[in-house]
Amino acid sequence: MEKLRFGILGAARIAPGALVHPSRSIDSVVITRVAARDRSRAEAFAAEHGIEKVAADYEAVINADDVDVVYNPLPMSHHAEWSIRAMRAGKDVLCEKPFASNATEAQEMVEVAEQTGRTLGEAFHYWYHPLFQRVLEEVRSGRIGQLVHVEGHFDISIAKPDLRWEYATSGGSTMDLGCYPIHWARSIAGEEPTVTGGDVEEDPEKIDAALGVELSFPGGATGYIHSAMNEPSRKVLLVVEGTHGRVVADNLVAPHKGNTLTIETPTGSTSGTVEAGTTYHHMLRAFVDHLRLGSPYPTMGEDSINNMAVIDAAYDAVGLPRRGLPA
Amino acid sequence: MEKLRFGILGAARIAPGALVHPSRSIDSVVITRVAARDRSRAEAFAAEHGIEKVAADYEAVINADDVDVVYNPLPMSHHAEWSIRAMRAGKDVLCEKPFASNATEAQEMVEVAEQTGRTLGEAFHYWYHPLFQRVLEEVRSGRIGQLVHVEGHFDISIAKPDLRWEYATSGGSTMDLGCYPIHWARSIAGEEPTVTGGDVEEDPEKIDAALGVELSFPGGATGYIHSAMNEPSRKVLLVVEGTHGRVVADNLVAPHKGNTLTIETPTGSTSGTVEAGTTYHHMLRAFVDHLRLGSPYPTMGEDSINNMAVIDAAYDAVGLPRRGLPA
Repeated sequence: MEKLRFGILGAARIAPGALVHPSRSIDSVVITRVAARDRSRAEAFAAEHGIEKVAADYEAVINADDVDVVYNPLPMSHHAEWSIRAMRAGKDVLCEKPFASNATEAQEMVEVAEQTGRTLGEAFHYWYHPLFQRVLEEVRSGRIGQLVHVEGHFDISIAKPDLRWEYATSGGSTMDLGCYPIHWARSIAGEEPTVTGGDVEEDPEKIDAALGVELSFPGGATGYIHSAMNEPSRKVLLVVEGTHGRVVADNLVAPHKGNTLTIETPTGSTSGTVEAGTTYHHMLRAFVDHLRLGSPYPTMGEDSINNMAVIDAAYDAVGLPRRGLPA
Repeated sequence: MEKLRFGILGAARIAPGALVHPSRSIDSVVITRVAARDRSRAEAFAAEHGIEKVAADYEAVINADDVDVVYNPLPMSHHAEWSIRAMRAGKDVLCEKPFASNATEAQEMVEVAEQTGRTLGEAFHYWYHPLFQRVLEEVRSGRIGQLVHVEGHFDISIAKPDLRWEYATSGGSTMDLGCYPIHWARSIAGEEPTVTGGDVEEDPEKIDAALGVELSFPGGATGYIHSAMNEPSRKVLLVVEGTHGRVVADNLVAPHKGNTLTIETPTGSTSGTVEAGTTYHHMLRAFVDHLRLGSPYPTMGEDSINNMAVIDAAYDAVGLPRRGLPA
């Protein structure tokens, strides 16, 4: 079977867990190229992870004849530029979250995908794990009744310095972390919210060290999303309240390190772990199956634009500039 | 959260993997009782697996006030009797596969479930694992076209002596092993087959050391099922042929020990492992969720009767007596 050949832009910290390790369990994937800001970094990465070749720079990856798909884990400010360049070079792209600096960039990226006929997926890995699929299934079953409120938290501590603490690289807690609970809420509601209020800890200037936003969905449900980069006590929690019960999922983003799914309905409650490997494993198979077989890969296109639109609206609501604007 | 309290009939070899270990990841399950043929065996099992109490005998388990659900991993010849007794004692039952000695017994068991209002599930664990769910999803998507042929093999070597080599305990390769590929084929076709031919290695008398049967489905697809207890080279393989492609799954019954899912469609092919823990973990959560929440648990009721009917027909086709008849 001919393998799908992936090239990696940047020896990013996330790349081994998100792509290299999962690729080992998928026979139809091989990583052929990696480039980094400096060649020695790329060489060390390639040697450590058994990647065939180092490319001179990002440009060389997107133009390589032995690359079919470009994985883009560059800083958030570079998602649009390099995803677009890769598509124009004829490559499909798996782009890390958040998809872009803002919805305008996201829109442009999706338009280029349509123009070039390339596939541009967003690496919202959590969605593809059986834990979140079980959440969706339970909510859609109606056993907790109608959706009333969805609350999502992603609070951690990110040490400085880090690109996520800088406006120039499109940093901020809502960008790096809040993008998840926003996506949980949108996926669960199955419709697009408006932002009705918000509260921010701005530190340093223009950066949301922590940000909470209130959401309102057309169907009547409400939402609350909170993210923080300055919270010593880790909290990755989804609570879905229905008219008749609720679903609570702990650790949707790294369920292989431990998770809990609790479901409460009028007839009874259950709670326990969903043991199903890493989110990245399931995402990569879904993406490859989408490319080769045409099976669904829902975290792309309009979905990606709409997620960025909520992030934009969150910044608007608290009086911070959207990301990706001239400094 | 009030826990569902399980009692185990027999210190069976399968019980730790199928129930005890999975119960540890499901907070809403506790195993309160175990009984075995002799008390010292039950005590050793309880001590090894941290089970609260030993019951004097099977009768004491099904009558215990601190048992809500009875897990029945007794020899196949005892599935009907003890599942029925447990339901009449007011307990829900998770019964090991194959469900019964034959379809007549299965029918009676399901009738008792209806009469008593109890839940009687069959422990077809493989069905609940993401590997098989992905197989089903791919077949149902139509990407491999219309179903043409489904072939399932479960060949291993079972050392003698073993209850599965004895007619008195409803042994035979089709009972212990063939029940799986028969269930794969029925689940994939989504309809009930007729048996159109078969071939058996009878050894000893009345026992199918190996048995192959040809199936015909109302929609036009055909099937071939093979099981063997005398095959040194292990083979656990499902091949689904469609008009436009195929799906091949290796090791549906123990995917946590390694598996491969290969999908071939007109647009391309993919292959790789589906990493998602044990089948038993997913089955137990599904069964508990079914009991408490009413979520689907499809391997029960008519499905169980119909699977036994194909096993009966397989024995008929090769001139061996159905299981469970007077010796």
